[in-house]
Amino acid sequence: MIRIVVDAMGGDHAPACNVEGAVDALQKSEDISVVLAGQAEKIRPLLEGLSYDASRLSVLDCPEVIETGESPVFAIQKKRDSSLVRGLRMIREQEADAFVSCGSTGALLVGGQTIAGRLKGVQRAPLAAVIPTAKGFSLLIDSGANVDVKAKNLQQYAVMGSLYMKHMFGIEDPSVGLVNIGTEEEKGNALTREAYPLLAATEGIRFIGNAEARDIPEGAADVLVCEAFTGNVVLKMYEGVAKTLFSQIKKALKSSALGSIGGLLIKPSLKGLLTTFSADTKGGAPMLGLNGLVVKAHGNSKKDQVSTAILQCLDFGAHDIKDKIRDAIGRLES
Amino acid sequence: MIRIVVDAMGGDHAPACNVEGAVDALQKSEDISVVLAGQAEKIRPLLEGLSYDASRLSVLDCPEVIETGESPVFAIQKKRDSSLVRGLRMIREQEADAFVSCGSTGALLVGGQTIAGRLKGVQRAPLAAVIPTAKGFSLLIDSGANVDVKAKNLQQYAVMGSLYMKHMFGIEDPSVGLVNIGTEEEKGNALTREAYPLLAATEGIRFIGNAEARDIPEGAADVLVCEAFTGNVVLKMYEGVAKTLFSQIKKALKSSALGSIGGLLIKPSLKGLLTTFSADTKGGAPMLGLNGLVVKAHGNSKKDQVSTAILQCLDFGAHDIKDKIRDAIGRLES
Repeated sequence: MIRIVVDAMGGDHAPACNVEGAVDALQKSEDISVVLAGQAEKIRPLLEGLSYDASRLSVLDCPEVIETGESPVFAIQKKRDSSLVRGLRMIREQEADAFVSCGSTGALLVGGQTIAGRLKGVQRAPLAAVIPTAKGFSLLIDSGANVDVKAKNLQQYAVMGSLYMKHMFGIEDPSVGLVNIGTEEEKGNALTREAYPLLAATEGIRFIGNAEARDIPEGAADVLVCEAFTGNVVLKMYEGVAKTLFSQIKKALKSSALGSIGGLLIKPSLKGLLTTFSADTKGGAPMLGLNGLVVKAHGNSKKDQVSTAILQCLDFGAHDIKDKIRDAIGRLES
Repeated sequence: MIRIVVDAMGGDHAPACNVEGAVDALQKSEDISVVLAGQAEKIRPLLEGLSYDASRLSVLDCPEVIETGESPVFAIQKKRDSSLVRGLRMIREQEADAFVSCGSTGALLVGGQTIAGRLKGVQRAPLAAVIPTAKGFSLLIDSGANVDVKAKNLQQYAVMGSLYMKHMFGIEDPSVGLVNIGTEEEKGNALTREAYPLLAATEGIRFIGNAEARDIPEGAADVLVCEAFTGNVVLKMYEGVAKTLFSQIKKALKSSALGSIGGLLIKPSLKGLLTTFSADTKGGAPMLGLNGLVVKAHGNSKKDQVSTAILQCLDFGAHDIKDKIRDAIGRLES
């Protein structure tokens, strides 16, 4: 049984979609139990009328709520009775295996490291994001947790990311690329120049060299290693360019009669493309290297996305990925 | 008269397109003179049969050629009789006002700083790229020249970029955004956290705060300031995401009959969009803060792009942007 705490209060559609997503996940798998953490008075009415296995669902009353826009550090220190703090504390105490939140990314990242805590040997816990590519998808790690890191940290990310891709998605020998601004070893900044030989010498991963940003959308590598500033820029550019291009295409089509008709005809094909070219089906972004799995689901997650994010914790637990990460990092450091 | 040296040997379509582009630029403007630097035996036959004002065109015989893939530092030290080294030396000696090349970016960046030389007070010379946005275009500075820089360097980029946007494109009071991974002042890494208050306190620029990567394609600011690693990732993600999306759209449309018909109907509209959403019409990427203008044109430039890149040097010279940069940096440092 994998024990999952769901932050019922975080996200644009909380608590309704969070509660519905949790119930949906419980219906889909008999191997999970869910703790809904949040304001009980708001959660309980939402559960009424839904059918689920009550022995695997409980509500943890957390009267305080962390709002978006609050300073993460301050919010965590002050709101000790929030779903986020209480949920992450359960991870540290090993009372739960995973924590899923659609709430404030900043608070989750700070709380993940300071409250849930890192596995022995792990220096920084990265946030990994699954991004769609022409070939399928890649894991971008670190996509937003730790800025100004050292080459050694990137090496740990490569190991953790490889294990995640292998055991979560069955990619046997995942390739690892270092996000860089050129393909040759000596290209880049001080960090990437130091990281390159370190990654090349790391046992147990398949390092294939630098991955230029230009090649990321085509699928440059299964695991894309970088520090968080770069990772976040990659992630957000992905989002931004796609959004702007689609809206510009729409505008261009509407500006002519032929375009409008053509636009109607291509709609079904484009819809299929958008579904394929979307990371939604892969669940939320995992924060790796902690005493449990912490998953950041998108802020605008609805029932289905919450359910998917919860079920990914099942796979994580079923494959003992936490233990595998701890062992691999142990070997790396010994 | 603006004196422009054109690297006849660099680029995928050199020397033919470089020579034709130079002649085209001479025909379009009477206020420029062009030195074609490169292997005279290859250039001269290409000039035969073309009509141009011979008093404004000369050939500088440079027997050595820097190949793509050569180590920039090594190539510059060794091939002193290459078009790149000879051309940049003319900038340093004030025998020319501008140098345009479609050749090796690495060699041009190294040569720009070490041979052409920086203006007094300029600590690093950034490469600026014009990128298309939903609103028009933005100047991304530094898009690839200097990694691992200091906040002070970013401040100089902001000043240089603002002057370029104002005088080259007539944008009266260009907004300046700091490329960052969040909107609040305290967001980002050590560099951006130090740069933010510095930019906010800089006179003569209109700093509007952080620009998140996600908002760049919509047109977050006229001038986007960042260090070169980030800038290059932004630039290359732009290219990569757009390329992959368009090829995926094509594939999706071809997979159904309706899609195929629709695809034919939307072709003209999309072509218009691609033209608008292209930086080609704005010329090459200028390297700013040097003893003259150095322009990196795209490696696959054909006649028209070479001509545009040459004519942008005319605007640069006509508005005395070099002097304006030197004066502004002088005031900043005094």
